[in-house]
Amino acid sequence: MALASTQAAQARRQLVLNLFIYPGGHHEAGWRYPGARPERLLDITFYQDLARSAEAAKLDAVFFADGPAQVDNIRYASRFRLEPLTWLSAIAAATTHIGLIGTASTTYYEPYNLARLYASLDHLSGGRAGWNIVTTAVPQASANFGLAETPSHAERYARAAEFVDVVTKLWDSWEDDALVADPVSGLFADDSKIHPIEHVGRHYRVKGALNTPRIPQGRPVYVQAGSSDDGRSFAARYAEAIFTAHQTVESAKAFYADIKKQAAGLGRNPDHVKILPGISPYIGSTEAEARQLHEAFSDLIQPEYSISQLKQITGVDFSGHPLNGVVELDAFKDAGPAKLVASRFQLVVDIVRREKPTLRQLIDRLAGARGHYVVVGTPEKIADEIQHWFESGAADGFNVMPPWYAAGFDLFASQVVPILRKRGLFREDYTGRTLREHYGLPRPQSQFAEAARATA
Amino acid sequence: MALASTQAAQARRQLVLNLFIYPGGHHEAGWRYPGARPERLLDITFYQDLARSAEAAKLDAVFFADGPAQVDNIRYASRFRLEPLTWLSAIAAATTHIGLIGTASTTYYEPYNLARLYASLDHLSGGRAGWNIVTTAVPQASANFGLAETPSHAERYARAAEFVDVVTKLWDSWEDDALVADPVSGLFADDSKIHPIEHVGRHYRVKGALNTPRIPQGRPVYVQAGSSDDGRSFAARYAEAIFTAHQTVESAKAFYADIKKQAAGLGRNPDHVKILPGISPYIGSTEAEARQLHEAFSDLIQPEYSISQLKQITGVDFSGHPLNGVVELDAFKDAGPAKLVASRFQLVVDIVRREKPTLRQLIDRLAGARGHYVVVGTPEKIADEIQHWFESGAADGFNVMPPWYAAGFDLFASQVVPILRKRGLFREDYTGRTLREHYGLPRPQSQFAEAARATA
Ligand SMILES: Cc1cc2nc3c(=O)[nH]c(=O)nc-3n(C[C@H](O)[C@H](O)[C@H](O)COP(=O)(O)O)c2cc1C
Ligand SMILES: Cc1cc2nc3c(=O)[nH]c(=O)nc-3n(C[C@H](O)[C@H](O)[C@H](O)COP(=O)(O)O)c2cc1C
Repeated sequence: MALASTQAAQARRQLVLNLFIYPGGHHEAGWRYPGARPERLLDITFYQDLARSAEAAKLDAVFFADGPAQVDNIRYASRFRLEPLTWLSAIAAATTHIGLIGTASTTYYEPYNLARLYASLDHLSGGRAGWNIVTTAVPQASANFGLAETPSHAERYARAAEFVDVVTKLWDSWEDDALVADPVSGLFADDSKIHPIEHVGRHYRVKGALNTPRIPQGRPVYVQAGSSDDGRSFAARYAEAIFTAHQTVESAKAFYADIKKQAAGLGRNPDHVKILPGISPYIGSTEAEARQLHEAFSDLIQPEYSISQLKQITGVDFSGHPLNGVVELDAFKDAGPAKLVASRFQLVVDIVRREKPTLRQLIDRLAGARGHYVVVGTPEKIADEIQHWFESGAADGFNVMPPWYAAGFDLFASQVVPILRKRGLFREDYTGRTLREHYGLPRPQSQFAEAARATA
Repeated sequence: MALASTQAAQARRQLVLNLFIYPGGHHEAGWRYPGARPERLLDITFYQDLARSAEAAKLDAVFFADGPAQVDNIRYASRFRLEPLTWLSAIAAATTHIGLIGTASTTYYEPYNLARLYASLDHLSGGRAGWNIVTTAVPQASANFGLAETPSHAERYARAAEFVDVVTKLWDSWEDDALVADPVSGLFADDSKIHPIEHVGRHYRVKGALNTPRIPQGRPVYVQAGSSDDGRSFAARYAEAIFTAHQTVESAKAFYADIKKQAAGLGRNPDHVKILPGISPYIGSTEAEARQLHEAFSDLIQPEYSISQLKQITGVDFSGHPLNGVVELDAFKDAGPAKLVASRFQLVVDIVRREKPTLRQLIDRLAGARGHYVVVGTPEKIADEIQHWFESGAADGFNVMPPWYAAGFDLFASQVVPILRKRGLFREDYTGRTLREHYGLPRPQSQFAEAARATA
């Protein structure tokens, strides 16, 4: 009987929970909140401690966003970048189970270099690497790579598809049993199981093989975060986890249904594509306390920064606009979202249409988590929201985006996670060691091993 | 009096000692030697333990070579590659003082990406990063990067010079005091002290600034390992430490004198260019024991591998040649070293001219450390050699290249280092925390800060 109920609990669909780490916290004023430690923003032990807290709470992974340019207005906010591969390697050394997801750009990396970096992260972490595949929308990046202009959206996604093909071949190029390392016979590697990939495509020519044995996970976990039509079909084809931003459960449900359907249509198992919206929790022991916490953050906002962010997302400059003046939908009518992130633009327009906010209110809505879902309330309320999204086909789990560190996450770990656990929605402990095991994803075979077998 | 003698000891010129880590050891059969742990070759804790041993012996740095291709014959030797930046980041997390020098190619990296990786390594290690700047001579690399052929030697060095200029500007782009992070005023960074670099050159266009605050060391320590004329003049201009391979003290002295003179001629302080030949020690408690150790390694050599290595260095294929037949100087007369590493080729030809070896003997000479200086003897003899090179103008220190790990290094650390220390040639303990401090190198000013001051 006890056994049966344990098995039932194990069989129950489990939430995925990642900790999304952004220097200084996800609220744009997070670095200013009392208890935030701005003097430790470049101190690796601060992030190692955070990852250890996430691991103690049995989270699936920590996640770092990235982009190869200084984009945000750095004058008012802690918006520099931590290079994810190096940072995660040092975090790997301080942890044993938690997954390590880093972002890297298909537009601004060479496939051979990227394949090596992630292979190495997977080796040194014992199979915990995830790659958030982005094409880098921000126009500032291209000028750091000798390009006169940013490749178009379509061009970036075409390159991305070929890029993923190339690195997949590289990660497959050593079959699992190519490494022998037998000191007695003197055979180090069976070179008949190491395959030059001989890739020749429209954008890349890469001979291979990779110069490192196959990694514990076979391939890192493929994560994606595009929301455009191209982005969604790319994700449906390649991604094993998808990060996404939604303000409402309805919007998330539509996205969820679309992606799962597309994935199934491509012959994939929809369970192997985890949909993970962002959630930024402001937690209080009462509703009133939570609202106070949220207001304390609002009070720290610097409108110059928020207005520069709003311009970055929408292309519209609100510098002259009174903070207490209502934002008109008309303000966006001439903003061509062509070169911007269309889904993020749409999200702002939807807020304006739905809520008719003043500029101050709009800024406030975005300051918390750049358009991700913000929940203000008691631990129970936050757990209720998570469960509701999870059980109504809006999410397979969440990217948790604390407004500030470390306490902003510790509250979630100590107050919300135990409730989810009690409800049987989240693991008591890790049952595996790799990120694939945490996410319930299969370990891919090398395509060369299969080909070899098929022709044998 | 005690104080005076301490000061005298402190004032005495000190050796630099790096541990050069090569998977499986520097002897090509190192991975087969009893006690080597081939099953741990991809286990980061093995390398963390090694680095901790080196740190316990107060060495200056650990060093990883690199190249973006599978070059060596992997069938018989552990010659895959560990990606240095990730690997060193995980080693940084397990150590506190030792320097971390990684190799990366100016031919196959984008400057913005490389600048970020080393900046991050320097941040997360508290100022211990070194960059071994290579142009990558092996022809296999270009095919992994879409190039029809390898850029010429001259072209590679021309790109390298501009590349170093670009990344130097990127590392200088945030002045030291640009980061403010004052939660009270809300000023995160003084953006008047963050400089777009606006680089427009023959090979690179990079706008900048870097997206991370200035690093503890200002810039990573610049290391170089070229031996050609172009390589030497590049090193004399940019390098703060130079790795080099010499079979004799005379050859090393000529190299040393040349580089120091060139550096002085460029207005640099020659003490700020450390010349570090490789040394591979076979240590026994008696001469006979040391020779036995060396012979045990020779017995493990697999000639197929050695002959493929010899072909790689010289372009000459000795597959049909009897192992006991003498190698004629004539064999190399048609070998065009144009696309190979000329200095390494010359080193082999010099051995053949000087020693008239059989193929077996030649293979043996190269198997130990790919042409680096091999010393077989007691700890005293090895310390004597080191002191002799150090005091006769042949070296400022050494890259220690153990034939195998971990015992091959532990012997050096426990037997040779104490003798050097007793002779006053090597530190009792670290006096600083950064690699620049260990090497006695100044911390560079940001060029933008100086410019700003000059025009003020
Ligand atoms: C949670 C989340 C994280 C993201 N992180 C990054 C990132 O780190 N770097 C980046 O360039 N884009 C990031 N994006 C943006 C997308 O990856 C994508 O580049 C952008 O949405 C443009 O693609 P689309 O036009 O298909 O939407 C992120 C998006 C989301 C929802
Ligand atoms: C100790 C030492 C280590 C080296 N490590 C590397 C390396 O890791 N990667 C590489 O491409 N070349 C390496 N080299 C080779 C040189 O950096 C350089 O690329 C080569 O000598 C060709 O330059 P040159 O023609 O100026 O000699 C190394 C050389 C020495 C002496």
